[in-house]
Amino acid sequence: MKLKDIGEFGFIDRIAPLGNVRPQGVVKGIGDDCAVIRISADEYLLITTDLLVEKVHFMLAWAAPDIVGARALTANLSDIAACGGTPQDAFLSLAIPDHIEVEWLDAFYRGLTDLARRYGVNVLGGDTTSSRTDLVINIAVTGLVPAEQVLFRHTANSGDIIILTGPTGLSRAGCDLLLREENFTTGPARTLVKAHLEPRAHLEEGRMLAESGACTAAIDISDGISSDLGHLCRDSGLGAIILEKDIPVAPELIQVGKSLGKDPLDWVLNGGEDYVLLAAIKPAALQPLLEQAAARNWRFHPIGEFVPGQKMELAKIDGTVQAIIPSGWDHFA
Amino acid sequence: MKLKDIGEFGFIDRIAPLGNVRPQGVVKGIGDDCAVIRISADEYLLITTDLLVEKVHFMLAWAAPDIVGARALTANLSDIAACGGTPQDAFLSLAIPDHIEVEWLDAFYRGLTDLARRYGVNVLGGDTTSSRTDLVINIAVTGLVPAEQVLFRHTANSGDIIILTGPTGLSRAGCDLLLREENFTTGPARTLVKAHLEPRAHLEEGRMLAESGACTAAIDISDGISSDLGHLCRDSGLGAIILEKDIPVAPELIQVGKSLGKDPLDWVLNGGEDYVLLAAIKPAALQPLLEQAAARNWRFHPIGEFVPGQKMELAKIDGTVQAIIPSGWDHFA
Repeated sequence: MKLKDIGEFGFIDRIAPLGNVRPQGVVKGIGDDCAVIRISADEYLLITTDLLVEKVHFMLAWAAPDIVGARALTANLSDIAACGGTPQDAFLSLAIPDHIEVEWLDAFYRGLTDLARRYGVNVLGGDTTSSRTDLVINIAVTGLVPAEQVLFRHTANSGDIIILTGPTGLSRAGCDLLLREENFTTGPARTLVKAHLEPRAHLEEGRMLAESGACTAAIDISDGISSDLGHLCRDSGLGAIILEKDIPVAPELIQVGKSLGKDPLDWVLNGGEDYVLLAAIKPAALQPLLEQAAARNWRFHPIGEFVPGQKMELAKIDGTVQAIIPSGWDHFA
Repeated sequence: MKLKDIGEFGFIDRIAPLGNVRPQGVVKGIGDDCAVIRISADEYLLITTDLLVEKVHFMLAWAAPDIVGARALTANLSDIAACGGTPQDAFLSLAIPDHIEVEWLDAFYRGLTDLARRYGVNVLGGDTTSSRTDLVINIAVTGLVPAEQVLFRHTANSGDIIILTGPTGLSRAGCDLLLREENFTTGPARTLVKAHLEPRAHLEEGRMLAESGACTAAIDISDGISSDLGHLCRDSGLGAIILEKDIPVAPELIQVGKSLGKDPLDWVLNGGEDYVLLAAIKPAALQPLLEQAAARNWRFHPIGEFVPGQKMELAKIDGTVQAIIPSGWDHFA
């Protein structure tokens, strides 16, 4: 049987039950943004790991090495953010092919450690080996979170408001532009390409959500709203309805979408790697949370709510309702 | 500049100082078998990560998938053993090329989790992605160790006895045999091939050393005695003298060495991936430790001692003394 027959998430479902051989102390195993381990009565250890392969996840020609390094760490920091945690230590493994020079690696490592320093994250070691073909980067990151503040995927309640901590779709649109191999030094295209190459993990936003007591569940947008909301719905045993009129659509997506003949809503709903957070908020706590965010110059976007059932639906501006089909990235689909 | 100009360890020396941006709580960063993090007054968290690349570290044709899975985890467990710890949780990242079938992955995962279960280690998650060419496996493992028992590389003392918790060279000899693509189902060759494909991490031995109070420093034999003793010497600011007459040489190495025209001592000193431990023992504590090991049916081998200076020397049976040059595996040399 080929992996494409069961898909990435089918494979994870297949292996997940086998691994938890000593449940004591394991608060959450496979199936959330991080594994969650109890290390004391009031504190949890978070662990996440991400594997990036050249030409699958990134192209060396697209960005300077320091940007590649920072971006690799960002994916992990975003997982810590989605659990409401504070990142602690990073562990870097590299498989390095012949075509990579020491100077490239120096700059890669500088970009990674500069970002790490901004968040007080140590880069403490890992493994270095050779590769026959492509550069491979694995980063594991630990984090800490007070036990009563941890954010899971499976704990949303019916009636909770769905918010985004920022707009989506920009990163995927930027990737599509880069794939066209044009020159994007100005205008909206530049904004989108930058969104793809230099995303920011919403760590402060995640901490605010965790501390607020307003948030019942969260995930980061790594695969796209349709997939990531799908995880929250499935794990929480709920459906969701999203209002098209409330979804943030960056003006750059509209402009570039027009010139490429592409519906911006497709990027917004199915594009991944924006690394904003999608969270479930208790209805009564929404307004104070939005104000608290605004006071820090963030804009949180309420885009819908969780409902009983298992359907995810989009209420269109034209009055129709259509199903949302998880169609973000699946590495084997 | 090419990596081969500075080597694997030159590269690690180059990047190691940059990563420790928040030293508080970090007991040991880059440069030991595990990173060591203080998580409470009396307990340390150990973290290690290993990256394995198909055709660099293993050949799919050499072993059944369950053996590949167990072997991948063994390298990490051995790092925990070298720090005297008890392994806790494993995090698996896989980059999977098209030629790998789901059935292969099922068996790989079964081999890995069967070994994990034997030591009470959870396999809690990680990352799954596609690969264009080779299978890539990254495993990160956490462990715990009482703060007063942790074993480092940098803490050996002059006069300490150097012991091995088992014989070396078998794994490398087995690898050499596999590279010759012959059929090894019987005799000494089979023993060596099995040593390469199914090594055992010396976790119980590591715990005994850690609890004994007799051990001042330890490392696992992943690169070979000459390299790994070299790490202990350099990090402890010491030299060492090894007595050829006391080095364990498995009879299979002598037999197979004869038929291949190869000096078994080269395998013994420079072969890696045996995953036995090399440790520094207080002289007065040696005899009780050896007896304690014998009572558990283990054989620990005193092979020399640490001395002032920085030379590593081999006292040959013929009365001559020769320098030991670190010449185990360097991925970029």
